[in-house]
Amino acid sequence: MSTILVIGATGQIGKQATKKLLDAGHKVVALTKSPEKLSDVENANLTIAEQNLEGDFSSAFEGVDNVVFAAGSGGNTGADKTLLIDLWGARNAVNYAKQANVSQFIMVSSIGAGNPDEVDGDIKPYLVAKHMADEHLINSGVPYVILRPGSLLNEPGTHLVTTDMPNNRDDAVIPREDVATTIVESLNRSSDDNLIVHLFKGDTPISKVFE
Amino acid sequence: MSTILVIGATGQIGKQATKKLLDAGHKVVALTKSPEKLSDVENANLTIAEQNLEGDFSSAFEGVDNVVFAAGSGGNTGADKTLLIDLWGARNAVNYAKQANVSQFIMVSSIGAGNPDEVDGDIKPYLVAKHMADEHLINSGVPYVILRPGSLLNEPGTHLVTTDMPNNRDDAVIPREDVATTIVESLNRSSDDNLIVHLFKGDTPISKVFE
Repeated sequence: MSTILVIGATGQIGKQATKKLLDAGHKVVALTKSPEKLSDVENANLTIAEQNLEGDFSSAFEGVDNVVFAAGSGGNTGADKTLLIDLWGARNAVNYAKQANVSQFIMVSSIGAGNPDEVDGDIKPYLVAKHMADEHLINSGVPYVILRPGSLLNEPGTHLVTTDMPNNRDDAVIPREDVATTIVESLNRSSDDNLIVHLFKGDTPISKVFE
Repeated sequence: MSTILVIGATGQIGKQATKKLLDAGHKVVALTKSPEKLSDVENANLTIAEQNLEGDFSSAFEGVDNVVFAAGSGGNTGADKTLLIDLWGARNAVNYAKQANVSQFIMVSSIGAGNPDEVDGDIKPYLVAKHMADEHLINSGVPYVILRPGSLLNEPGTHLVTTDMPNNRDDAVIPREDVATTIVESLNRSSDDNLIVHLFKGDTPISKVFE
């Protein structure tokens, strides 16, 4: 069991990942600016790091083995926060992780972040930010898994996914809970190859994704 | 004399650079979405490429020796355009330049882009975008000069600059015309070392900056 820093630990994916990591016996450092949102989680292996991603949050990386970046500025803020949180916060997290010599960085990215030019409309600036954050991680030398889930659903997970892009865009969906489960499974993988993995509802048990 | 692609050729720096490059005898491909703003420039060596940086503008790179990126979404648009133009437009320009095997990429960056965390306030998202665009250029393998001017002034150039950061932040200024002159001079340099150069009003003739 290792110590996992979850950045964005009170987000919709981050909180589920935090709970599942604790259930799996890991120690979790939960980085959030809203620690009250974790008041319902009682576990001796949980440490809260109350930090703002717009400041210096390097102290949260002390003694950490793995980092999960599940933070996001959310859909209700402007693109200035997309630049400051989704891009620059992630960039700084990668640099802190490198300095702390962590074993692995799990980035929650997005479908479309691979090539934002394939996408039109209001989501494109967000995908540009995610793309550049992913690129910074890829070039950093820190071992990584980049998860690129489809459209996120608030429904119970099925524990069954596919990493192949569906033919029909409407099928490119996945419950947030299954993304959280995939984060936990990514820590158990035997290989340390760098990976970029798409994630959609499918037929494959999540435990097989990293075999 | 070579062929220079000026991206953002009708901007406040870009237009002055375009004129000075033509005056120096270069061929200029002027990329802009507002070609009417160049209607006062008559020169047989000027070609207009009417393009939008949010689309595919790779065709403008055909037969180009050097690229100048002087585009910006400007202060009157939102941070979504900062992501789409200042960051993603620059990123795509670098990739097109690499594909076209250009000799050199001159990026008009900004003071503060080296370390956006040293800066607070409304300008920080812009500096994050400029930082990540510069980082993409640095990692691209395309030979580069990154210019990081201080606060830009609309006054006649003095042709005298310094590349040393002034002790007093109020002295960290430079006329746009001197940035344009520096772009022209950067094409005459003898070395092909990659450079990141700060630019402020000073005592050194611009022609000496690249010696």
